[in-house]
Amino acid sequence: MKFNFKDTAIFKKEEISKSKDFLKPYFEYLKGVVSAGTYESPEASLNLPSDDDILTTVSNLVREKKTENLKYIFVLGIGGSNLGAKAVYEAIFGNLFLEKEDYPKIIFLDTNNPKLLYDVKEIIKNKLEKKDEVLINLISKSGTTTETIANFEVLYAFCREKFGRLEDRVVVTSDKNSKLWEAALKRGYALLEIPKNVGGRYSVFSAVGLFPLALCGIDISELVLGAKNMRDICLNFSDENPALNSAVLIYLHYKNGKNINNNFFFHSELESVGKWYRQLMGESIGKEKDNESNIKNIGITPTVTLGSIDLHSMAQLYLGGPKDKFTVFVSVDFENSDSGIKVPEEVEMKELASGVAGKDFNQIMNAILRGVKTAYKNKNRPYSEVILKDLKEDSIGRFLQFKMMEIMFLAKLLNINAFDQPNVEDYKKETKKLL
Amino acid sequence: MKFNFKDTAIFKKEEISKSKDFLKPYFEYLKGVVSAGTYESPEASLNLPSDDDILTTVSNLVREKKTENLKYIFVLGIGGSNLGAKAVYEAIFGNLFLEKEDYPKIIFLDTNNPKLLYDVKEIIKNKLEKKDEVLINLISKSGTTTETIANFEVLYAFCREKFGRLEDRVVVTSDKNSKLWEAALKRGYALLEIPKNVGGRYSVFSAVGLFPLALCGIDISELVLGAKNMRDICLNFSDENPALNSAVLIYLHYKNGKNINNNFFFHSELESVGKWYRQLMGESIGKEKDNESNIKNIGITPTVTLGSIDLHSMAQLYLGGPKDKFTVFVSVDFENSDSGIKVPEEVEMKELASGVAGKDFNQIMNAILRGVKTAYKNKNRPYSEVILKDLKEDSIGRFLQFKMMEIMFLAKLLNINAFDQPNVEDYKKETKKLL
Repeated sequence: MKFNFKDTAIFKKEEISKSKDFLKPYFEYLKGVVSAGTYESPEASLNLPSDDDILTTVSNLVREKKTENLKYIFVLGIGGSNLGAKAVYEAIFGNLFLEKEDYPKIIFLDTNNPKLLYDVKEIIKNKLEKKDEVLINLISKSGTTTETIANFEVLYAFCREKFGRLEDRVVVTSDKNSKLWEAALKRGYALLEIPKNVGGRYSVFSAVGLFPLALCGIDISELVLGAKNMRDICLNFSDENPALNSAVLIYLHYKNGKNINNNFFFHSELESVGKWYRQLMGESIGKEKDNESNIKNIGITPTVTLGSIDLHSMAQLYLGGPKDKFTVFVSVDFENSDSGIKVPEEVEMKELASGVAGKDFNQIMNAILRGVKTAYKNKNRPYSEVILKDLKEDSIGRFLQFKMMEIMFLAKLLNINAFDQPNVEDYKKETKKLL
Repeated sequence: MKFNFKDTAIFKKEEISKSKDFLKPYFEYLKGVVSAGTYESPEASLNLPSDDDILTTVSNLVREKKTENLKYIFVLGIGGSNLGAKAVYEAIFGNLFLEKEDYPKIIFLDTNNPKLLYDVKEIIKNKLEKKDEVLINLISKSGTTTETIANFEVLYAFCREKFGRLEDRVVVTSDKNSKLWEAALKRGYALLEIPKNVGGRYSVFSAVGLFPLALCGIDISELVLGAKNMRDICLNFSDENPALNSAVLIYLHYKNGKNINNNFFFHSELESVGKWYRQLMGESIGKEKDNESNIKNIGITPTVTLGSIDLHSMAQLYLGGPKDKFTVFVSVDFENSDSGIKVPEEVEMKELASGVAGKDFNQIMNAILRGVKTAYKNKNRPYSEVILKDLKEDSIGRFLQFKMMEIMFLAKLLNINAFDQPNVEDYKKETKKLL
């Protein structure tokens, strides 16, 4: 994984050093969290990638539940309970997995979407015969998430009608001793625990993410190994620390009026990685109050952009509009890799395709990305860059861990709490009155 | 379709009236454009919904190309060439259409995504036997879009290898006499014209959107009828004009420091409608120069949020973070309609699901939406509201037309050109040097 934090950095060395030095004590603290290896601190998620017990527990349950004819894994969860798994799943399997006959596949049920449930009903009716073709993974940290519980009841009723009772095809992932945990115990559903102090948006390397991913064949050892390696890099207070560099640049640009952080992925299959990061930044950095309870309304709005798709819809705004954005380009190393998909040498429409004839898709995307970066420079639009080795488990694990640590550093710089989300209650309490 | 522009409007009546009055002369001009019925003016797209020739041409070509066993329509286009069709397609068919056996279905190829093309290759190899199971719709207004031409050459090569030559299974949609038009004529591909002066982001009701949609059974007459009815409503200078009301509110909030326009859809299947609007606003409103060529860097950044999914990722930022957003909630009339998907009366987990037992999904979503609106009010976060009758053709047509006219009004208020995109060339010329 390569990084570029230099191209359009407009800040003086001293400014950058000052912000970095401010974080120095936090590094000592984080190293303490990791050497303790427990789940006591708010930064507990840092210990997930080196927790072998989780890998073992998840792998054992996968062996038990992964029947030979397993077709559909229904992952019921919303926000932190599904964004991580979805991000990794789509990064690895791409956008057309539903159209392919590769089983098992995951169908994610997040909000209460009637059309989706109608279609799920049809799938259960027409494509499935036995209960061991199905697995339901119900994920809720609190154990009381309205949409997740409602989806479970509807889905379970569909399944019961078709297969009869199927307690053994339900796996619940929750905080130990939540109401859901107790309910699951009583009914004989299998249980997976979310470690204490690991919040939803930091939980991808717990059973929340690992169980459904392992179930459909993703190499979770590689995923967490990548994460662990990146964690260890980002625990070093050094000029090569990518999470530190990234956090400082986002911070300084925010202080200079860039209230939008544009995450510009050059791979459509990373869209859900972008959505995962949206939650990570949105909930961790969007805060009414600072750490001393002063009302400050701090926050950076994360946006997700897909290259080259959104160049055809948003480039005009990005290059001509207000200078209110700091951009992070994310791509694989187009310059030094082939995708294997090539425009033929002998094209059908020579008069149009001569520029791309014989070119690998990575060469085309490289030309587009380079064109965009040059245009950003010419128009004084600041950006940094992350270049992944590939879109495999190790790389994705590294990227996610890099981002989680970047956000911890950024919150520290902004003097806010990266781990709470008090304003979510503002709407939930109103909703609860109505239900 | 219902609207609410009153709930959190913080502006004085006089301010609102002043902005509206400023637009009065523009209404006279637009009425002239519609009564002429031609494609001479930049606002030419207003005449698409009443152009019967387009409907006839499209319907005739659909009859010719829609073979009995048609399975896959590959729509090759990017930006304005596919966002409209994709928006309507997903709004009507939902998110799981790929998993269902309902044919024909559309696979959209926009950027040069190698993983997607690998999967498409596999589909062609394993799921198809004859060329009349496939139709390729190649859409490019300019006729020279790099990604679209590259995707076509790769896809055509796959198909040729399997089926032999298949000129009769290609339909090209382009500007008359573009290089692509000429190339298509020479090779005997069927041709559909994009009327002069209809830019990509305003082209959904031309053959660009209508042909692929009609091909997979969407009622395009209903779609354009809805659009036509909405157009006629929005041509009236009145206090009930939703496009006018919406444009003025977005304008005044932008002048008051809200540089983000958050489009908050309460239906996952409207995500692509949101992406269509992102282009419409991004390209039309993001401008380096005003109409007198003064450098102004004007622009509002459109974001797309999905309720209730993103409440679990973005609500904390929206309610606690900076007051830099004006929000538009879009939903169907939850309060007065049932979705048909209901949580059973007899639930599995009584201790958790008692609040939702027996409730229709629309009731649950209604409680959530109401909770969110109350929280927005309590936290002084401004919003307006659009309530669709349903998610059928007429409603979607109305919504898209409403938004296109809103953007025309908004650009007028900002003294910028809603119909050009000069800065897109900034990166394209750099990319072309490299290809």
